[in-house]
Amino acid sequence: MGGPEIERLIELLARLPGLGPRSARRAALTLLRQPRTRLLPLATAMEQAANSVRTCDACGNLDSRNPCSICADEHRDHSMVCVVEGVGDLWALERAGVHRGLYHVLGGTLSALGGTGPEDLSTAPLLARLAGGEVREVILALGATVEGATTAHWLAERLASFGIAITRVAQGVPMGGALDVLDDGTLAAALMARRS
Amino acid sequence: MGGPEIERLIELLARLPGLGPRSARRAALTLLRQPRTRLLPLATAMEQAANSVRTCDACGNLDSRNPCSICADEHRDHSMVCVVEGVGDLWALERAGVHRGLYHVLGGTLSALGGTGPEDLSTAPLLARLAGGEVREVILALGATVEGATTAHWLAERLASFGIAITRVAQGVPMGGALDVLDDGTLAAALMARRS
Ligand SMILES: [Zn+2]
Ligand SMILES: [Zn+2]
Repeated sequence: MGGPEIERLIELLARLPGLGPRSARRAALTLLRQPRTRLLPLATAMEQAANSVRTCDACGNLDSRNPCSICADEHRDHSMVCVVEGVGDLWALERAGVHRGLYHVLGGTLSALGGTGPEDLSTAPLLARLAGGEVREVILALGATVEGATTAHWLAERLASFGIAITRVAQGVPMGGALDVLDDGTLAAALMARRS
Repeated sequence: MGGPEIERLIELLARLPGLGPRSARRAALTLLRQPRTRLLPLATAMEQAANSVRTCDACGNLDSRNPCSICADEHRDHSMVCVVEGVGDLWALERAGVHRGLYHVLGGTLSALGGTGPEDLSTAPLLARLAGGEVREVILALGATVEGATTAHWLAERLASFGIAITRVAQGVPMGGALDVLDDGTLAAALMARRS
């Protein structure tokens, strides 16, 4: 239609979540019409992100610093660790501003159907952090799905030996609901009403 | 949340048509999780498109060749020129495979409200092509909007002196409808039933 470069751009854009073939074409067109002011800046932003963003060794967050800016922040409460399924959940909680402690990103939930076992989840950095002795409470902020509940139960058992409070966000997370689509108020309520 | 690189990436993605802030974050996350296999290839595709894609001097199409691959195609019917508002319409007609001639991209429609006057539309390359003497029919494939109708009328008058057939796609384009959201069958019917 306009050479292999355009086809390739549309093809890769169409693979983004939220963009189908039609909106990928519209996005490509918008970018191609302003190559210097829109296309190249986005290309540069992607390259810089690819070259700088790493997974935090301490918590699993994505950041251009390692340890990430949350782990490195002395003003945050290092005695509380909120365990989430993915970085998207961490972002949602940060946007809501409802958790002033640290995070741990599991990288998924246990799922027999999805073939996700304990070995596929990141727990070693969390255990290492707990072994450090500074943490007094672990908040399990997993989705209110069967997998989320299974994972929370499994993790609570694994952490029991540390003798610290293990709480779980409860009220406000709708059944079957993922965390990162909730509004700030719901997230705040869920975190406030957490239970052991 | 994860450093300025991530913020910038999300901000630029959110400006794409079809992506709001929420889907921009989801898209950024998907890309950041696979920097080498997803983020860098997209960055490269964007850079290559920005460096290679130009506006065709002859018709206004976007292509890595100039004249574009349509204008340069000897197997297409160079005696028919289909006038469209934008490159998105050209793409829609090409996907439908209903026009075997050439195109001319106006770059907009006349709009008093939008402040688009005759001087904002690209007509010089079309006039130059018509002066060449090879074109026997100009098909006006503008949207069935007030602006599309006004523009078609204005253009038909400007082209009258060339003494060639000026037709207009009619049947099948719904009132108020833009061309590039129509299905292939509708586009084919509209083009077949064009009228002078
Ligand atoms: Zn961290
Ligand atoms: Zn061309």
